[in-house]
Amino acid sequence: MTRVVVVGGGFGGLRVTTALRRAPVEVTLVDRSNHHLFQPLLYQIAMAGLSPADIAYPLRSALRAQQNATVLLGEVARVELERRVVELSDGERLAYDYLVIAAGAKTNFFGHDEWSGAALGLKSIDDAIEIRRRVLLAFEAAEREPDPEARKRLLTFAVIGGGPTGVEIAGALAELARTVMRRDFRHIDPSMTRVVLIEMQGRLLSGGFAPKLSDEARRELEELGVEVRLDTAVERIDDRGVSTATETIEAATVLWTAGVRARSVSSALGVELDRAGRIRVEADCSVPDHPEVFAIGDIACFVPDGGHAPLPGVAQVALQQGRFVARTIAAELRGAPRARFRYLDKGMMATIGRSRAVAQTWRGRVRLGGFVAWIAWLFIHIWYLIGFRNRVAVLANWAWAYFTYRRGARLITGEGAWRRLPELAARART
Amino acid sequence: MTRVVVVGGGFGGLRVTTALRRAPVEVTLVDRSNHHLFQPLLYQIAMAGLSPADIAYPLRSALRAQQNATVLLGEVARVELERRVVELSDGERLAYDYLVIAAGAKTNFFGHDEWSGAALGLKSIDDAIEIRRRVLLAFEAAEREPDPEARKRLLTFAVIGGGPTGVEIAGALAELARTVMRRDFRHIDPSMTRVVLIEMQGRLLSGGFAPKLSDEARRELEELGVEVRLDTAVERIDDRGVSTATETIEAATVLWTAGVRARSVSSALGVELDRAGRIRVEADCSVPDHPEVFAIGDIACFVPDGGHAPLPGVAQVALQQGRFVARTIAAELRGAPRARFRYLDKGMMATIGRSRAVAQTWRGRVRLGGFVAWIAWLFIHIWYLIGFRNRVAVLANWAWAYFTYRRGARLITGEGAWRRLPELAARART
Repeated sequence: MTRVVVVGGGFGGLRVTTALRRAPVEVTLVDRSNHHLFQPLLYQIAMAGLSPADIAYPLRSALRAQQNATVLLGEVARVELERRVVELSDGERLAYDYLVIAAGAKTNFFGHDEWSGAALGLKSIDDAIEIRRRVLLAFEAAEREPDPEARKRLLTFAVIGGGPTGVEIAGALAELARTVMRRDFRHIDPSMTRVVLIEMQGRLLSGGFAPKLSDEARRELEELGVEVRLDTAVERIDDRGVSTATETIEAATVLWTAGVRARSVSSALGVELDRAGRIRVEADCSVPDHPEVFAIGDIACFVPDGGHAPLPGVAQVALQQGRFVARTIAAELRGAPRARFRYLDKGMMATIGRSRAVAQTWRGRVRLGGFVAWIAWLFIHIWYLIGFRNRVAVLANWAWAYFTYRRGARLITGEGAWRRLPELAARART
Repeated sequence: MTRVVVVGGGFGGLRVTTALRRAPVEVTLVDRSNHHLFQPLLYQIAMAGLSPADIAYPLRSALRAQQNATVLLGEVARVELERRVVELSDGERLAYDYLVIAAGAKTNFFGHDEWSGAALGLKSIDDAIEIRRRVLLAFEAAEREPDPEARKRLLTFAVIGGGPTGVEIAGALAELARTVMRRDFRHIDPSMTRVVLIEMQGRLLSGGFAPKLSDEARRELEELGVEVRLDTAVERIDDRGVSTATETIEAATVLWTAGVRARSVSSALGVELDRAGRIRVEADCSVPDHPEVFAIGDIACFVPDGGHAPLPGVAQVALQQGRFVARTIAAELRGAPRARFRYLDKGMMATIGRSRAVAQTWRGRVRLGGFVAWIAWLFIHIWYLIGFRNRVAVLANWAWAYFTYRRGARLITGEGAWRRLPELAARART
């Protein structure tokens, strides 16, 4: 039986596995988590709107009925391309006939790893819980802070990166402060909160959105009270906040959504990578000189025919590449030649807050804004969630939040989290 | 204005605060968490059935409309009884006219603190998440384990303590293995799981339940496949498992529900404590020689009139004492004399698994078992949950789990959790 090893259970890895369900193969899916994570809604965990279980789904449950699939919880330590073996960090060796690398991306500070202490990235559930904790603690510290300058710093949030995640987080933070927290504090007025969104390019959502929608997103964010800084590069991030060429934004909380980098398994292959560490793949998503190895999703650098920019790191690319690779393997086993992957751009969207979003489909030919885009955003996200339970849970949480102006998961968790309060306050005072 | 400081936002502390809403006082509620936790359902987080946000409620939201209440996130470092000042660990000092100590209890290993590494307690959300992680990792490690002996150890769970929490966890674990996980693994059969419940006394639920219900609970647990050991003292707990006088139960996962001890703020008072570190209180719940200081709930040792055993550490005691103390303070401000606290035993209950529970009311005169008790258990727990959202969320999760035989929160979270898999396996093999 042909052995297929899939590394990573995100959109790409899970899709390639399920799309192989009727192929004469044995699939082994290896992931470091026991769940598939619906990344597009991860920021809502960070913003206390959803619980992790609402957007995560056990991989075993997803593949429960698929008899030719096995799930292994583990980390890939090494890939021996010549021997066709994947070695896990506990020493287990998995031989493969086909290998699909779909391990995704992690936060990238572009060479400034020293910023990782002061700026929080958002790629995993643990990242999201940490952001939730830090944001809620900042409000708690401000509530107890007598010094008005320190209180101002505690209530200033800097979001770096004006892509969809940065836009969504900035909008959600502004809403959190101005509606959700409004009546809950006695000594601070959460409307004193400052949210500053910093983008290096000349417009928000520059990666693929129509300029008109960038303007709309900016306008809607500004209506929510977010300060948007365009054409602004970050020069330093530390405990004081964020420094740019022209100013220092004194912020106790700095969130980083400005870039990602391929997970390190890509560099273990010894093949050509792009600047973001992604594996440069051929037109059939395979690794050069290794037609039996594929890389898909965020870990792959796929440049379309006639294009010059690689495909963006979005769920649709991973899903479509996953299905394509599964079909390629199944076809090859029947003796068929390989096809070239073609990406169908179904559109892009970003939500900005309550009843506000921007969306475009068919390469920007149809553009939506405001309430209509928000409803579209809402149902498309529900549609792509895995599992009936998660769909109901997310929809119910959203409905509740919409009508009550509250957030259902406003928890500070983590052993000894309260001990970080005096630290936070001390830092804000200096 | 009379200043009331309340330490702890559990059942007792929150109740005393809300019951003071119309009194001419200013209440400051201090807690290390930002949320009230519905402890009776905490084991369901550990068993992957509920999310933390379903049974936790932000204290600020609970007290949002109460103008005379303030919430402070912080830890009490010291109480100066003579000066009537509470000092927080960050140095802030709160002067009080009345102090209510409702800080609760923590896991107690009865002098065997060395067991705390191998045995997991269950008192906080973090404890519950850790148990969930360890239980799910044990199944994952077993799935990858070639050695049948090691696999057996990985699938053996020892639960120490046959009170309500121990009974509920043992039942839930047996169900988790036999129904939820049944079809999700390829290399192990989760019905090979062994759950051993160890109780020192001669019967389960010995703290207040009628002996007939103890027998019923035992019978129902055994029907679920749980091995119940009565009259059995634990002599050692280590990485191998649990040793008693007659056997060693080789278990990779050991859960400890056998005892609690008052939180350490009790010993900071310099007043008389019982063996469990609880503050011995007078008939009006006040601390001897300090009528302005009250201790309620799990941190207090209250012996009823004519009784010899202190009241049990259950939510009802804390709730009733909370209301009593609030009324006592309000009455005293009007010049009324103090009354004596009388506990009204509304009953006790424990669930054993799907459609199984035991319950009794009015000092055991009405006793229920099986499905009827389970339905009663279910609605009473929903009733006491705070917040419409949480009630709906818990009920929806239960309905979903009931009909699908699944668990909605089967997530292994925590940075690098997968790294513990090889550790677990190595320990099971030695």
